[in-house]
Amino acid sequence: MEKTLDVLTKEQILVATEDTLRRFGVAKTSVTDVAKVLGVSHGSIYRHFNSKAELLEGVTAKWLNDKIIAPLSEVCHDSSLKSTSLLKQYIQTLVELKHDYARDDEEMFQMYTRVTEQAADVVEQHIDHIVKQLADIITREGIASDHPVQLARTLFYATARFHHPAHAYEWKNPLIDQEFLNVWTLLEHGIS
Amino acid sequence: MEKTLDVLTKEQILVATEDTLRRFGVAKTSVTDVAKVLGVSHGSIYRHFNSKAELLEGVTAKWLNDKIIAPLSEVCHDSSLKSTSLLKQYIQTLVELKHDYARDDEEMFQMYTRVTEQAADVVEQHIDHIVKQLADIITREGIASDHPVQLARTLFYATARFHHPAHAYEWKNPLIDQEFLNVWTLLEHGIS
Repeated sequence: MEKTLDVLTKEQILVATEDTLRRFGVAKTSVTDVAKVLGVSHGSIYRHFNSKAELLEGVTAKWLNDKIIAPLSEVCHDSSLKSTSLLKQYIQTLVELKHDYARDDEEMFQMYTRVTEQAADVVEQHIDHIVKQLADIITREGIASDHPVQLARTLFYATARFHHPAHAYEWKNPLIDQEFLNVWTLLEHGIS
Repeated sequence: MEKTLDVLTKEQILVATEDTLRRFGVAKTSVTDVAKVLGVSHGSIYRHFNSKAELLEGVTAKWLNDKIIAPLSEVCHDSSLKSTSLLKQYIQTLVELKHDYARDDEEMFQMYTRVTEQAADVVEQHIDHIVKQLADIITREGIASDHPVQLARTLFYATARFHHPAHAYEWKNPLIDQEFLNVWTLLEHGIS
């Protein structure tokens, strides 16, 4: 029962891929498995994604957008917070989201981490998105006038230990929240 | 030609282990190989190290002490620098040493990184040593009186991207030195 090709969207393929990955794991998931779930030929998948690697990158990009960027965008436009409180809330939300997913969905988080290591473009776009939103807050709230993008990127790098997936093993330490607050407090002093 | 047991020191075993690792790699190095290099029975090795894992931890701890802590100790007692300049020099030296070894001795650096992931005690002692020296500078130079150890640890964590081996792939980016300086400048503002 092959579905009509033009109704098969990239989004549908990515949702089916994520389901398949959750059931079989990365190693045992093939393009053919995803096609079977959708009831289409694997040619229909290749029309949108050239390889399994591209499919994994697509799933990872979607995960980063849905699970990390979407809630961060809400914080970015939260009018109840001002100045460095808004900046702190944004970075703290980023940190908490990463910690939550690393703990509650460990297997998928590790999958995304591995894909991320090989998909430099996906990560670069993700970081650029976050830096842009941070710079937006910095400019909008009048926190710094000179180099908002540079300050945004510097804040992102100085807090890497708390949101870069390579440090996930350190997030199990009960001191991690306090350690983040200590780093943030020092950075906030540095900004003002 | 078995050597007299009491002349075989831990240090000699570790030097022979490092030689063996450089020649054969981690996977193909056995305790027996190390014993052969030293011309002793493998029992003589087990007298000092209970397993291959302990031997690898020993080599890693020695590498961290000889290559990282020893030069940092010199900076720590460099009387030509004062206050935050000394603090900056210490952390910048840590960053530069890591970058140099990651670039010039990539294979061994990766080996140490992998061992480090499994040897939490070795890493913890290494970090404690660095935090102690940083806190020593902070106290001695009158940079902060309240919580020198906490400030030391916070500076270490806020610069993790530039010295934690999981970030080694980012150190090849030509912007990395400037990015470190940006983070340091913000932290230094935060201290004063």
